[in-house]
Amino acid sequence: MKWQMARRAEKMNPSVIREILKVTEKPGIISFAGGLPSPKTFPIDAMREASERVLRDDGKAALQYAASEGYAPLREWVAQDLLKQGMNVSPDQVLITTGSQQGLDLVAKILIDAGSRILVETPTYLGALQAFTPMEPVAVGVNSDEHGVDPDDLRAKVGTGADKARFVYLLPNFQNPTGRTMTEARRAAVAQVAIETGLPIIEDNPYGDLWFDAPPAPSLSSRHPEGSVYLGSFSKILAPGLRLGYLVAPPALYPKLLQAKQAADLHTPSFNQRVVAEVLKDGFIERHVPTIRALYKQQCEAMLAALDREMAGLGLTWNRPVGGMFLWVQLPQGLKAIPLLDKAVEKGVAFVPGSAFYAEGADESTLRLSFVTATVDQINTGMSALAAAIRESLSGQ
Amino acid sequence: MKWQMARRAEKMNPSVIREILKVTEKPGIISFAGGLPSPKTFPIDAMREASERVLRDDGKAALQYAASEGYAPLREWVAQDLLKQGMNVSPDQVLITTGSQQGLDLVAKILIDAGSRILVETPTYLGALQAFTPMEPVAVGVNSDEHGVDPDDLRAKVGTGADKARFVYLLPNFQNPTGRTMTEARRAAVAQVAIETGLPIIEDNPYGDLWFDAPPAPSLSSRHPEGSVYLGSFSKILAPGLRLGYLVAPPALYPKLLQAKQAADLHTPSFNQRVVAEVLKDGFIERHVPTIRALYKQQCEAMLAALDREMAGLGLTWNRPVGGMFLWVQLPQGLKAIPLLDKAVEKGVAFVPGSAFYAEGADESTLRLSFVTATVDQINTGMSALAAAIRESLSGQ
Repeated sequence: MKWQMARRAEKMNPSVIREILKVTEKPGIISFAGGLPSPKTFPIDAMREASERVLRDDGKAALQYAASEGYAPLREWVAQDLLKQGMNVSPDQVLITTGSQQGLDLVAKILIDAGSRILVETPTYLGALQAFTPMEPVAVGVNSDEHGVDPDDLRAKVGTGADKARFVYLLPNFQNPTGRTMTEARRAAVAQVAIETGLPIIEDNPYGDLWFDAPPAPSLSSRHPEGSVYLGSFSKILAPGLRLGYLVAPPALYPKLLQAKQAADLHTPSFNQRVVAEVLKDGFIERHVPTIRALYKQQCEAMLAALDREMAGLGLTWNRPVGGMFLWVQLPQGLKAIPLLDKAVEKGVAFVPGSAFYAEGADESTLRLSFVTATVDQINTGMSALAAAIRESLSGQ
Repeated sequence: MKWQMARRAEKMNPSVIREILKVTEKPGIISFAGGLPSPKTFPIDAMREASERVLRDDGKAALQYAASEGYAPLREWVAQDLLKQGMNVSPDQVLITTGSQQGLDLVAKILIDAGSRILVETPTYLGALQAFTPMEPVAVGVNSDEHGVDPDDLRAKVGTGADKARFVYLLPNFQNPTGRTMTEARRAAVAQVAIETGLPIIEDNPYGDLWFDAPPAPSLSSRHPEGSVYLGSFSKILAPGLRLGYLVAPPALYPKLLQAKQAADLHTPSFNQRVVAEVLKDGFIERHVPTIRALYKQQCEAMLAALDREMAGLGLTWNRPVGGMFLWVQLPQGLKAIPLLDKAVEKGVAFVPGSAFYAEGADESTLRLSFVTATVDQINTGMSALAAAIRESLSGQ
């Protein structure tokens, strides 16, 4: 039996990270690789109570088919919550998605033709590249520094006519993979380029609530509301296993995204939407999220202290994130992350080689470290093992 | 702000059914329109207990990211359950999806290029057409009778070379919209055509467990396992609001469907998968599904009796389903379903005009009636109102 596959299927490949994560699941490995929120932060008791109340009081509706747009009280909560980011949106602009990953899939379907140019950060979120790939874009990396994309390079790469980029995909807060955050000035400059060139922004903000000392600057979407799609998620402030996210789109785009949503899975599980709406009642997030921030800040500081201690004199550089889940390491010249990973796993520690995150021109001497899954003790032990692997690699060069 | 949409977005249109369902949601309307399972059948107590147990015993795993393939015990349950349809599949071939609608989306991504011919029944499930449309196929209707597609016309329409159909999409049991079921002989003949021509089958079976007196014949996939993708669902035997379905694919196709799944929403909610796996333990389905069958059989019989009683002499014909949720009505010549709907809604009853369900050459004098959502009393009242609307329409011709 010969299956004739679609052309796009040939372009889809197994996730490199997925393969790496399999290696890191070996027992005894301390993993800085996965982007798994700490399960300590999952509000299990609140979920138990909310599930019980939803099924007791409203079980029939919670288990029935529902509107593709999402559950109205949840859409209202989202619209209200976005005020804190300077966004003034109607609940009618909110579409509940099956994780924010689905928002990327819907955006790709609606905005990308085969061969369309799209612009992404350097490096960028791998899951977004995977969501866009089936629609066969040409993904172009915009030069980026510690504050995100360079506005001048962004302007230079917008293009015109049929060659004009369909959108720029940006993750301004505690970016995956680098952990970097766009400053107020950079946001203003990037929004200005987008407005002047009519370039749509796809703004992904799964980590925005995970700030350590101060919230990040207002969103890009607040500066360019008619030209932006904003993606949000409950995965990092409640729990990823619910697969609950949302997008906010301007009225010009919303109906097509809604049709794509309906065709994709009819609607996001009504049960999950109602349970989360129940959990969110009465200001739960305001009490809960500070506990996540405190935990991740402590673990980030432990990782930075361990880097300072263990990596002194080895020629590495790294950034100091002000929130989120990740930090980004530049290895000394000539040391490549993929061979280093083999040696690190031998010594009981894992990370993700940075080269997985580039649309083009991968820097093979970078790596991503997650500071949220491992405990402080594990961070100390793991970083010592990683330093040993690096020393060994350097001496063998 | 001008958004440059993808070409496929232009082809996507709001669901006709969705617009109709809005009308039928007016208070006081008896609806035979929607395909909503009776909420009486939802196992709310079992869900409460299972949710409590899952969160109590395994909350951290239930709320964490999980494998794209799905939860292993649920995949094992599915493989075991399919034995009753004559399918001998490995759990490794099972991919848990966010409702079986997502299975259609994944199949479309992997198998359809723009302009690819695909074959569908006449009429066919509207949601499948909507899932396929974004990949821009040319959907060709195969001539069909009360037993499903005509094998000779199917063979004639397979095509060759670049023009060869990528698959035929079939819903053999209690089809949506017609309620018809493929006989054993028809299944054998259709499978024979598929095997001889190398035509892949996409077999959709959301209703197969809802038989009244005897289970349907073994699946098409059991006859052509290397050339079939089988789609199943928990929506009709447990509850649709969980959005839990699955697909079964041959090893040649599974990896690409898995990559498409990962790109689409990473994985189906772990919480929902674990709750359903918990509900399914210890033979729950064997006790629960017979109660759904008995209810739907009673309601179907009530609707058939009401049709016999109310429509005598009006020139309508209809089928007598042996399971499922729907029956199919042919109106007298010249009477069209869309204008009839307006009159019916005035009289307090709604249905779905059949023309929504055709890939090409719609028959405008057909309609779909659901017998599962309305009670027997509502069925009697609603059918009397529908007969009045038909009489009025006929007298006005």
